[in-house]
Order: sequence, then C-alpha cells, then structure tokens
Amino acid sequence: MSTISVHQDQTSVRTLPAGVEPAQFDRFLALVAEALPTERILTSEADLRQFRDPYAFETWTEFTASAAVLPTSTEEVQAVVRAANEHRIPLFTHGQGRNNGYGGPAPRVTGSVVISLREMNRILEINDELAYAVVEPGVKWFDLHEALEAGGHPLFASITDLGWGSVIGNSMDNGITYGPNSQDFGAPCGMEVVLADGSLLRTGMGAMEDNPTWHLYKRGLGPALDPLFIQSNFGIVTRMGYWLTPKPEVVHPFFVTAEKEEALGPLMETLRRLRLDGTVQGIPSFRNTLLLASVITRRSEWSDSDAPLDDATIDRIAQETGIGRWSGRGGLWGDRVVVEHNYAKVKAAFEQIPGVTVTGEPIPFDQIGSREHYYERILGGVPSMDIHNVVGWYGGSENGGHLSFSPVIALTSENAVESNRFLRDLVEREAGLDYQVAMFSVSARVMVNVVMMIFDASDEAQTRRAHDAVKLMVREAGKRGMGEYRAHLDFMDLASDQFAFGDHAYRRFVEKIKDAVDPNGILAPGRHGIWPEAMRPDRSQA
Amino acid sequence: MSTISVHQDQTSVRTLPAGVEPAQFDRFLALVAEALPTERILTSEADLRQFRDPYAFETWTEFTASAAVLPTSTEEVQAVVRAANEHRIPLFTHGQGRNNGYGGPAPRVTGSVVISLREMNRILEINDELAYAVVEPGVKWFDLHEALEAGGHPLFASITDLGWGSVIGNSMDNGITYGPNSQDFGAPCGMEVVLADGSLLRTGMGAMEDNPTWHLYKRGLGPALDPLFIQSNFGIVTRMGYWLTPKPEVVHPFFVTAEKEEALGPLMETLRRLRLDGTVQGIPSFRNTLLLASVITRRSEWSDSDAPLDDATIDRIAQETGIGRWSGRGGLWGDRVVVEHNYAKVKAAFEQIPGVTVTGEPIPFDQIGSREHYYERILGGVPSMDIHNVVGWYGGSENGGHLSFSPVIALTSENAVESNRFLRDLVEREAGLDYQVAMFSVSARVMVNVVMMIFDASDEAQTRRAHDAVKLMVREAGKRGMGEYRAHLDFMDLASDQFAFGDHAYRRFVEKIKDAVDPNGILAPGRHGIWPEAMRPDRSQA
Repeated sequence: MSTISVHQDQTSVRTLPAGVEPAQFDRFLALVAEALPTERILTSEADLRQFRDPYAFETWTEFTASAAVLPTSTEEVQAVVRAANEHRIPLFTHGQGRNNGYGGPAPRVTGSVVISLREMNRILEINDELAYAVVEPGVKWFDLHEALEAGGHPLFASITDLGWGSVIGNSMDNGITYGPNSQDFGAPCGMEVVLADGSLLRTGMGAMEDNPTWHLYKRGLGPALDPLFIQSNFGIVTRMGYWLTPKPEVVHPFFVTAEKEEALGPLMETLRRLRLDGTVQGIPSFRNTLLLASVITRRSEWSDSDAPLDDATIDRIAQETGIGRWSGRGGLWGDRVVVEHNYAKVKAAFEQIPGVTVTGEPIPFDQIGSREHYYERILGGVPSMDIHNVVGWYGGSENGGHLSFSPVIALTSENAVESNRFLRDLVEREAGLDYQVAMFSVSARVMVNVVMMIFDASDEAQTRRAHDAVKLMVREAGKRGMGEYRAHLDFMDLASDQFAFGDHAYRRFVEKIKDAVDPNGILAPGRHGIWPEAMRPDRSQA
Repeated sequence: MSTISVHQDQTSVRTLPAGVEPAQFDRFLALVAEALPTERILTSEADLRQFRDPYAFETWTEFTASAAVLPTSTEEVQAVVRAANEHRIPLFTHGQGRNNGYGGPAPRVTGSVVISLREMNRILEINDELAYAVVEPGVKWFDLHEALEAGGHPLFASITDLGWGSVIGNSMDNGITYGPNSQDFGAPCGMEVVLADGSLLRTGMGAMEDNPTWHLYKRGLGPALDPLFIQSNFGIVTRMGYWLTPKPEVVHPFFVTAEKEEALGPLMETLRRLRLDGTVQGIPSFRNTLLLASVITRRSEWSDSDAPLDDATIDRIAQETGIGRWSGRGGLWGDRVVVEHNYAKVKAAFEQIPGVTVTGEPIPFDQIGSREHYYERILGGVPSMDIHNVVGWYGGSENGGHLSFSPVIALTSENAVESNRFLRDLVEREAGLDYQVAMFSVSARVMVNVVMMIFDASDEAQTRRAHDAVKLMVREAGKRGMGEYRAHLDFMDLASDQFAFGDHAYRRFVEKIKDAVDPNGILAPGRHGIWPEAMRPDRSQA
C-alpha cells in the first residue's frame, strides 16, 4: 500500500488505489457508467472534496477518494459492486457520512471509490400497527421525523443529537440515540445487504420469501447476521428495519447539575442503580463543564491562555453558565403517574449527592415539538442541529474541528473516576487541549466516554497534535483494559491492535470471514482494522 | 453419508461416522485419552443411550453417537477439538441437552462424538454491583438460582420453565425465558469460544485482555460475534455472561382466561399494544386449553376416541378445568405503585374482550419462593420441573413424548388467527393428534407459536406420524412465509430449506463462514442446516 499512482486525464488528477492501473480503473468506470448516469459518477477534485475527512488539510493525501458514485437504488449498488469486484477496485460506503469526529465520509484506503448512499433515501414502509419503519441508507433523522409527522403516524423514533445523519449509517457504527428503545442498540431489525459479488442477502426471517417478521424478530433460523454487518466490511446494507415507539402520554426530561467535580463517582453509582432497576430507560448521558460550555460560548470568552484551563477557571465557567462541573440528562416516557413516580425517584436519588440538583417537568407528548430546549425535543424524536456549535470552542463555527476517542467503561464509581482522571491527564498533557467529555450510558452496565478532542481545524499543528494525542490515548487506554467503541479512520488499526487476546484471535477470526465472503477484498478494506488477505499489513510490530 | 461402518470391539458396537475408519477413530480416542480420564470417555452402548433423542426407538439408527466425552474444563474441550480436527471426527455439543422436543442431547450426524458439557458446571462469577453472572455450559437454572440464594445476592435470573436445562444451552438456541430482561434475548453477553482448531476466542470487549466490560457491553470494536455462535456450528461456547436483575419490591403475575376460542385475535391485539407501550415486560405467553389440560390431566379422562378432540369436548375441558380456551400469563416487576398501575391497565385492556377475566396479585419479592403456583415462582427466578408432566397427555408420564414445531408469527390479530387455524388443521388432519400450542411473545412485535406435538412415545406408528406431520407443517408453513425459530434434528435441513430468498443466499453465506472457520467440518456438521463443504447434501431438489 505504499505506492499510489496518480492518473491525470482531461478533467482531474486522480489518486488511484495502490496497485490499480489507470486503464483498469477506466474499465471499472466504464462499467459503472452503464448502470449510473454520469452526473452521479464524480471524479473531479472539486466534486470529491465533499467526501474528504472534513478536518483534513488539503495537503494530507490519506483517506482521499479516486471517485464517488451516488446510486439511487439497490440495483445500482449491485452494479457498482459487481464492477468493482471484476476490476478489483476498493470501495468505501457511507449513508450520509456526517460523523465528522471519526472521519466523516472519507474512505479508509486512499484511492477508494466512495459509494455515497445519500441519494438512496426512500422510506419504504411505516407500519403503525407493529411500530416500525423500513428505510434506505440515505434516510436522515430529519427525513424519518418528517415522514412520521406528515403521515400522522402515532409513532416516534429514537434519534441522535444531529438530525443530518443517516438512520442506517448511525446504526452501522453502533451510534448512540436517546429514545426508549435506544438501550443496547435495540431499534435496528432486519437488513438487506449487497454482498461482495453483487448478490443480495436478507437477514433473519427475511431470508424466507415474503416472511412478514423480517423487521420484527431479532433472530432467524441459524445464526443472526445483523450484528455481523455492523462495524465491519462484509456487505453494504441497503435496507433496514427500525423499531419505533408509540407516542406516550408524557415525556419527562430530567437534568442533573452537579456543582463539584468529585460528584462524578456518586453520580455514576446512582445512575447505575436507576438503570438496573428499570427506573431510567433510553440512554442518559453526562457531560463535563467544558463540553457543554462549548455549545453556548467560545473559549476566548474565558481565557487568553493556550494552556488547558485549570480547575479554578472551570469552576468559574461551571458557576457562571450554570452548567456545573457535571451535567446529566435523560428521559422518562409513559403514563403520567408512572413517569412522575420515577422522576421523584430520580430526583431523590441524585439529590442525595452533595451539590447536586435535578430539574425537569412532564411534557404532554403533543407539546414536545414546541419546546425550546433541543434535548427535550430530541427525547420526543424531533431532530435538530443545535449542538453542532460544540466544535467551535477553539476555532469558532467556521474553523471548529473535533476528533473522538471513545472508550467503553464499566458503570461504577471507581471506573468512572479513574478513567476520567486518566483521560483528562492525557488530553491536557499530550495534546495541550481542554478536556471535554460526554458519557453515554448505552446499557445499564456501561458508559461510553466520548472524549471530544475539539481543536481549531485551521491550525495544522494543533490538528496534528490532537491526532497524535488520541493515538497515544488508544495505546495507553488499551494497556489499562479500556477499548474503543469506534475509531477514527486514522487509528482504526491501532484501536483494533489493542484487542489482542489469544494472539489477536478476534481479528484473525473476522479476517477469515472477510476472506471467505469478499475474496477480492473490495468492500471497505481496513474498516475497523479488518483487512482482506492481499492488503493485510505486517503486524509483527503491533 | 449413506455408508455407516459399524466397528465392534471388546466393549461395544460402535456406529462410526460415514467415512471414518475404525483405526482412525481409535487414534482419535487415544489422543482424547491423553487429556481426559477414561471414566469421562464413554463408548459403550449402555453409556451412550442417555445421549440419544429421548423419543427415538431402539431400532432408529439416526442421530446416534459413536462416543461421548465429558470434559470438565475449557482446556479439556480444546484437547478434544484438537484431536477431532486432526482425525476428522464430527463432534456435537450440548450443555445439558434437555430440550427433548428438538432431539435432546442427540447429534445431528450419526456416529458423531458427543461433547457433553454437563460436568463443566462452575459459576465463575456473580457480580452484585453490575448485576451479572458468568457461567460454564453445564450450569443449570437450578444451579444458578441456588448459587444466588446461597450467596445472599440481591439479584435474580430470568429463567425458563424447566430448571434442569443449561443457561448457556438455552441461550445457544434462542430459548425462551420469562424474566424482565428476557425480551429480545437480552440476558446473554460476552462469550469465550473454542474454535475448530482448538484455539480460544473471546467476543466483544473480551477480545481485549483484562477488559472489565466483556460481560457488560453487547458490542465490541468491529462486528459483534455473540449472535454468530447461536444456532450455528462455528465454535463451542465454554463461558458466557448472563445479565441478572436486582430484586424488585414486588412481582405481579397476571393470568388471563378467555372462555371463547374466538378471543384469540383480540387477545393478541391487546397484548401487542401493552407490549409496545412498555406496560408489559418479559415474555408473556398464551396456551390453548389442551396444552394446559395436559399439565394437570390425562387425555383418557376426557375421551376414549383416537380422533382429535372436537370443539365441544375442548369447551367442556375448558370449563371444567377452568383453563378456558386460551390461558395467558405474564409478569410485572418493580415498585408496587408502578406495578399496580400497570396491572390495572392490563386487567382493563384484556377484560374489554368478551368472556375474558384477568387475575393476579402483587407479591413481595421475598415471598415469591413460597408461592404454590410454579409460574409465579418462575417469575421470581425460582426454577421447577412442574410442567414436565405436560408430555403425558397420550402416553402417561412414563411414555409421554413430544416434538415441537415453532414458527415465528407477527403479533397481529389476523396473523394469530390465521396461523392458528392453519396449524390446528394440519396437526389434526395429518397427524391425527390433538392441537396443543403455547405462544410466546418474545418481542413486542412477534410471538413464537410452539406447537407441542405430544404423542405416546411407546407407540412407534404414532411417533412416526408426528414426525411426518411436522415435516409437512414445515413445508406448508414455509410456503406461507412462516419460518421456524428452531428445528428438531430430524428436520433441521427441511426447516433451513424454507429460507430460500436469493437462491438460498443466507445459507450460502453462512456456509462460506463455516468453511472458513472450520475447514475440516468437525463442529456439529448439519446443525440448523449448516453443512461443511465435504458433507454438503445435494440440494437440487430442495
């Protein structure tokens, strides 16, 4: 993978994948052009810019595409995959490619052809009786919400923070949503998948023709394959069921504010108990002062120093903004009497911790869309872009960038405090950046600590320092038994290296599957550290 | 697979697997004997009888083993697998092998060596803080409950009807349990697996050494493999996490009795609504008159006729036993005030249906173990063997046998009524047996209809008729888009044949995985229709 051939033609300078000859690439494009109109085959540098890591500099040549195609149907995806399989062209797929902290829509392998599914955006079904939708990969949270509202459906979706993302794309990376069925990735069910030879697979009960339980039952006869297509490169999901929830009587958001840093341990203990006994559902989360401050203020309002903000300054921000040192939020859904009982439990439990206040009120479901706070709307399935502002802490909204480092932590006081100390120390010491973290309780037993490495994306040195610091964090966290739930393109291999039990038994097993189901290695090579045989890196140093 | 060589030595007549020479088999046994004491290597006909399909006749030669081994540690399992891989001996594994309706502990391929994990029965961990246990495959529901009680743990397990089964074994086949985290197979998390070459794999976060979230987080970095080892033959699970639930204030069983057959549709509509809005958790279930009558009476008490009982007789049984035509049951767990609110909803909703009565009362959790009704105890995690009596309808407790046919049905009135009519007709017409069914709402959106084909297992003709009828049902159900959640050894292939979308794309995909991860095809060949290349049947007629 060290040689990259650059191919110049009339319209563009192309970065072809290593080992691919220009003529071979042209034959591939010619085959694609038989299936897709030319305006949905992009090869110019200008057109391809939108498919780069949004925070990469012009001169960074990694993770750039040779072309992008925008199919609008499963048949077109199949045609592209067949052409790539015939001509040995590496592909990389996204739904909307909006998760910028992990590389956005950019491909892992330089010179890959990006299959952008942004225009494959039909909602194929909304079933009121059985409470599910079937979507294509280009369907955004905004689209799904609009369709539910426009059709007057008595249902809402569990959604994520930013409405511009893809329902399928988020699910394909174990992304977080907040609704009642978000816990343990509960909403996706039943997939249609284009395999490496261009053929179609349906998972679960969908493997039987006309079986109405395809999107209703999480298993099938034989092993369930849905999870195998998540965070992998064994197929391209072109259709998926997504479970919805009947609109409840009320939604009850709750907001937890802790004045003191040392509340973290007791907060996590309390949260776990409320999760395990079923009082709190969905995915509640906690953020530290500087992450939430980043949504509503700019760093320059608080300090002129480049050094990471000290505790005295953070305390000042915590007090003046009212954010506190830790800010938690979650939701309760259901009948008013049940929700009020559970809210009283939540409030009493958290307020036993010194300096902690819990607020919130029950909201009749039909009023949720007109609430001022975006988080309250999100709990009711109403998407927004409000928190996108978070990235502007250093660089302002024009130049804000971020990387995410996201280890999974056991939900205990001890683990929370120790991992937080360790992560903060690394961010401040190695990257020289402020420590900004959001902790998501994706199940009753763990939290995912998303460390948002926010930087000024116009400052190349700072951007590189953020990359380097995260790489160090991946290694250091790995030594302490902390694994990432998801990794940026730039350290997918490194993150995967940390899962070394049994001489990397897990990776050797999934790479056996990779070679069996994609023998030419064309589907997203390298995604989450899974490489096809011909491109497998020398890991003797890992 | 048509030739079976029978090898006679001093102690036994062995049915060796097709293509395996006696000397080859002896070399395998000699290698196993280096790792296991001889008393845990069984080869005599008498010793092997316990590993047959419990309802097979002596003269039926299919599904019989050549030997059985009883390892007590993962290392011993590895040694057996390595020996089998070296000498190309097919294996078949069970935990306790107690699900008699699907073949019990018997192997799919005649002459296989059974790995019985019954004596690998340690509970490796019970974690009070994070509410999970880690068990070996021989751990029974009885064992887990006893350990929780003996240790004074504040937790209980979601369990199944019969306490003699294995926690892992049940999970490996998508078996049903009833507790709060049973829905959508929520309890298992994190596995250790012996692969076909004898090496060890740890799934999820366990793929990282010393990662404390192995049994806490349902995914990992890269594709999640737990579901891939369920209903497959890609590895032998020797360790698994199982999530537990903190003991709630009260358990509130509810019992639904419907006088009339035609209540079925409205019952299922009501159940779905109560499931989708979160009122009812766990796995509620409904049984018809004759299935429940079979637990407490014998057929001879009601009729002398061999013909399937007619509706007049069923009505009489329904009334005299008090069972009704449909009997539903479920549980609510939590704070008394919430549970009482939800129970009132359940009662009001079901009792809107003519002829339906709902009963039940809240039980403080510490009193659940002393309740008379086994189902109430089961809701509190206290196992029993009470319903094993169900199989004696025709043959009495000595000679009772059963086969299960278990399609997954969308949870709507129309699907429930139509599938019930269709299944009853086939059972009565083709098998000449009474129609006995239990319907389990394993998610809010489906039920699994377990048709219990109960027969007199001392009557060979009736037993064969039951097998033949189920085979017909598998085919006919398949034509109507109804797929089984699990199949008996005798029709695993037939059940798998029904999943034919894309020229059997699903099976071709999983068989590619099979060949990649078990190239010698030694692990449970044929399990759920997945065959290794060398043994793959001619499916041109399928």
